[in-house]
Amino acid sequence: MTEQQTVPTRGGKAAHVAKGQSIKIINTHGSQVVDTWAFRTDDLTEFMSMEHTRSALLKLMPATGDALYSNRRNPIMTLVEDTTTGIHDTLLAACNKERYEQLGCTEYHANCTDNLTVAMQELGLKEPETPSPLNVFMNIPWTDAGGLSFEEPETKPGDYIVLRAEMDCVVAMSACPQDMVPINGADCVPTEAHFEVI
Amino acid sequence: MTEQQTVPTRGGKAAHVAKGQSIKIINTHGSQVVDTWAFRTDDLTEFMSMEHTRSALLKLMPATGDALYSNRRNPIMTLVEDTTTGIHDTLLAACNKERYEQLGCTEYHANCTDNLTVAMQELGLKEPETPSPLNVFMNIPWTDAGGLSFEEPETKPGDYIVLRAEMDCVVAMSACPQDMVPINGADCVPTEAHFEVI
Repeated sequence: MTEQQTVPTRGGKAAHVAKGQSIKIINTHGSQVVDTWAFRTDDLTEFMSMEHTRSALLKLMPATGDALYSNRRNPIMTLVEDTTTGIHDTLLAACNKERYEQLGCTEYHANCTDNLTVAMQELGLKEPETPSPLNVFMNIPWTDAGGLSFEEPETKPGDYIVLRAEMDCVVAMSACPQDMVPINGADCVPTEAHFEVI
Repeated sequence: MTEQQTVPTRGGKAAHVAKGQSIKIINTHGSQVVDTWAFRTDDLTEFMSMEHTRSALLKLMPATGDALYSNRRNPIMTLVEDTTTGIHDTLLAACNKERYEQLGCTEYHANCTDNLTVAMQELGLKEPETPSPLNVFMNIPWTDAGGLSFEEPETKPGDYIVLRAEMDCVVAMSACPQDMVPINGADCVPTEAHFEVI
């Protein structure tokens, strides 16, 4: 039996996923980006790395069947199922407090970088750094000239991906609290997301 | 007066660059990739970040006039001059020993990740992590579908870029020792590079 757990609106959550288990990340309300990290359980200094994944796959985006690679070039998870059109982002950094200050916030704004820290703390862990996340469901198209833009997700309610763990790892997720640019939908209203460890 | 210094073949070198000074990175022999990092002198945990730079510029590659951003979203350097066709890579990870093991090396192979460590050590410093580097002169084109490929540099001998420091920083460079795929030219022969602090 699997139990659905919540990544709270504007918050983060982490879970242990043993080698061979999978984690299903669900876009419950249909337009929520979920920044996702994975750290090797017995040595957190090995973690999923977007730059090493791009180098290994020679792709800007992983597709179903592709592994995601660690900073030591080992497969750490594999994308085994994806009900979306396949659009996820590997290019942009997790939002952080400075991002919102620059957007004009004068008070603290929830952000994915701090959500990672809190999610890990809840498991008694500390991330060694803030790796560039796999931005699940995030829609950042590129042009021939190398331009990028923030677009709304193309996902629908209930869309999900399944990542299979290739080593024992801790998977951390942040329901991105971005409400000032429309990456979580045109209404700029972040929502919760859900996940299951299968 | 400025003095030309050497980034040795297959090796690394770092230098202090004060705010307002610039560093000129020279492709002496015409086809050498130089992995480049910058760390804030008085707090090495702030450093040039490709994922934050892409987020800030909304570009896959910086162009002349663009700032390069730190992981705290501050401009750390600005690309003020570039004699090349403007092709540099922000997407791929620094090579590491695991990369060469996977390419079939059975003995230790020099690599940019270790070159960063040695270059910092020569200044009595230790990098807090291995940020994804600005791969100066590296030619990694992308396709509409998101495919990437390793191509030879389009540079010629003596081509250079100039980066102006926007804060006091330590700039580390590695003359990429990759000799198994043709990113340092079709002959796969890495060479030295040079730099000047101006």
